[in-house]
Amino acid sequence: MRVAIIGLGLIGGSMGMALSRIGADMEVVGYARKPQVARRARARGAVERTEKSAASAASGSDLVIIATPAMAVKGVLSEIKDSLRKGAIVTDVASTKAAVMGWAEEILPASVDFIGGHPMVGKEASGIEAADGDLFQGCTYCLVPGRNATKKAVAALEALVRRIGAEPLYLDAAEHDRLVAGISHLPLLISVALVSATAGSPFWPAMSRLAATGYRDVSRLASGDPLMGRDICLTNKEPILSWLDDYIAELKRLRSLVNKGSAGLEQALVAARDAREKWLRM
Amino acid sequence: MRVAIIGLGLIGGSMGMALSRIGADMEVVGYARKPQVARRARARGAVERTEKSAASAASGSDLVIIATPAMAVKGVLSEIKDSLRKGAIVTDVASTKAAVMGWAEEILPASVDFIGGHPMVGKEASGIEAADGDLFQGCTYCLVPGRNATKKAVAALEALVRRIGAEPLYLDAAEHDRLVAGISHLPLLISVALVSATAGSPFWPAMSRLAATGYRDVSRLASGDPLMGRDICLTNKEPILSWLDDYIAELKRLRSLVNKGSAGLEQALVAARDAREKWLRM
Repeated sequence: MRVAIIGLGLIGGSMGMALSRIGADMEVVGYARKPQVARRARARGAVERTEKSAASAASGSDLVIIATPAMAVKGVLSEIKDSLRKGAIVTDVASTKAAVMGWAEEILPASVDFIGGHPMVGKEASGIEAADGDLFQGCTYCLVPGRNATKKAVAALEALVRRIGAEPLYLDAAEHDRLVAGISHLPLLISVALVSATAGSPFWPAMSRLAATGYRDVSRLASGDPLMGRDICLTNKEPILSWLDDYIAELKRLRSLVNKGSAGLEQALVAARDAREKWLRM
Repeated sequence: MRVAIIGLGLIGGSMGMALSRIGADMEVVGYARKPQVARRARARGAVERTEKSAASAASGSDLVIIATPAMAVKGVLSEIKDSLRKGAIVTDVASTKAAVMGWAEEILPASVDFIGGHPMVGKEASGIEAADGDLFQGCTYCLVPGRNATKKAVAALEALVRRIGAEPLYLDAAEHDRLVAGISHLPLLISVALVSATAGSPFWPAMSRLAATGYRDVSRLASGDPLMGRDICLTNKEPILSWLDDYIAELKRLRSLVNKGSAGLEQALVAARDAREKWLRM
């Protein structure tokens, strides 16, 4: 079995490492736009070799994993579409699914099986240096089969997902995007807004000396790859706007409780703590 | 030297552990309202013994550390004021300082030295079980000397702060509260609002299965002690309201960039990432 990974950043690199670890019967080839990334991916053992183009990496592969930010997936699909062998499985790892599913349906030949994917993992650091073969251990891995994907192809990808330690979860694209907007894209924008509101303040030089672990954790997602963040917002606009509106309304409710100094404030803090503790115990 | 710690939660317990570690010449006694907390504090070595009241713990002590949430400090000051020996140093560890400084000035006799304190530390867990003698290693420790505190008392407390591994930083109470509202109290309310906006949604049962490390980190502060959070809001209202307004304005700016899909969005993401990375390297 030959696997091609297009894009060798945190997720693509980690996928290569996880696959090479489980599969003696598996050849993992890669492609990265930047030669130094390709070099580091080889050096770190994420791929056995790299090809000069996405098309040549995809050519002859049984499974093609597109591991780029969402907006780049469309271009990669166009580049590889004529090189895919009949019956190849194509998947991606982008953070949003509706746009990607639409592009795959529009661009790919009917002879290949497209199944959208989204491993629910993240790390403060990005790029091939942060790649880690254990990244997917215990994570939920969303799968969104394309309209024409065969049962056999879906079962094969599901089996692979399980072999790298992840738990597959089937969703449709719109549902995926709405849910992920709430638990992933909203937190990203919350983090970014915290950093811009504070670091842009005239008090920042004094404040920054006091900022400690609380600030570090709540702002963590602001350190993510800005291109990935941009692509998330560009491809999942409506659900994100809707969650932002809900979130701003909730902040205003808390603001009013703080302003009144009412007992409702303590209730809100207790309810949030209890809800989070319940989630952690899940 | 005899030290009394009133309140044996995360901070009080950690302080006791840190002090017993450094000082063979130091007797550390404690008081906790709940007998089972007092018992655990003794068992964990946070204090050598506990007293039956805050007043008896304070009596004869050279240093009294009030380690309760902010709103409880006032009552403790009233309870101990007649038991303090002349020349005793009294300090606290509450998250806000203006209210506490006012109470100390109003309640304490002129014969004792009050110096407000606030170690910039935090942990997801609270309570005596989470106490840790290394908690203060490398942290910034805010000190707000009372109007009548002697230089000698301030120097003695500063020396102790350094001995538990922390870095003292002198601020006035209003400045402290304004700065800390931005890097600590705002992040707390941001976390709480994220949990209430998402966990209160009809989509939560499905979303909660997808929530991963990003959600966990941004929501982390919602797991803190609700009483401490309430007291922070009650004693630092105006700075918190002002920061909430700035933060909501920043979220609305990001919302508009997402809505337009403009290049400004990528710039905002890059600027936030760069500002955070600069802070991390400080």
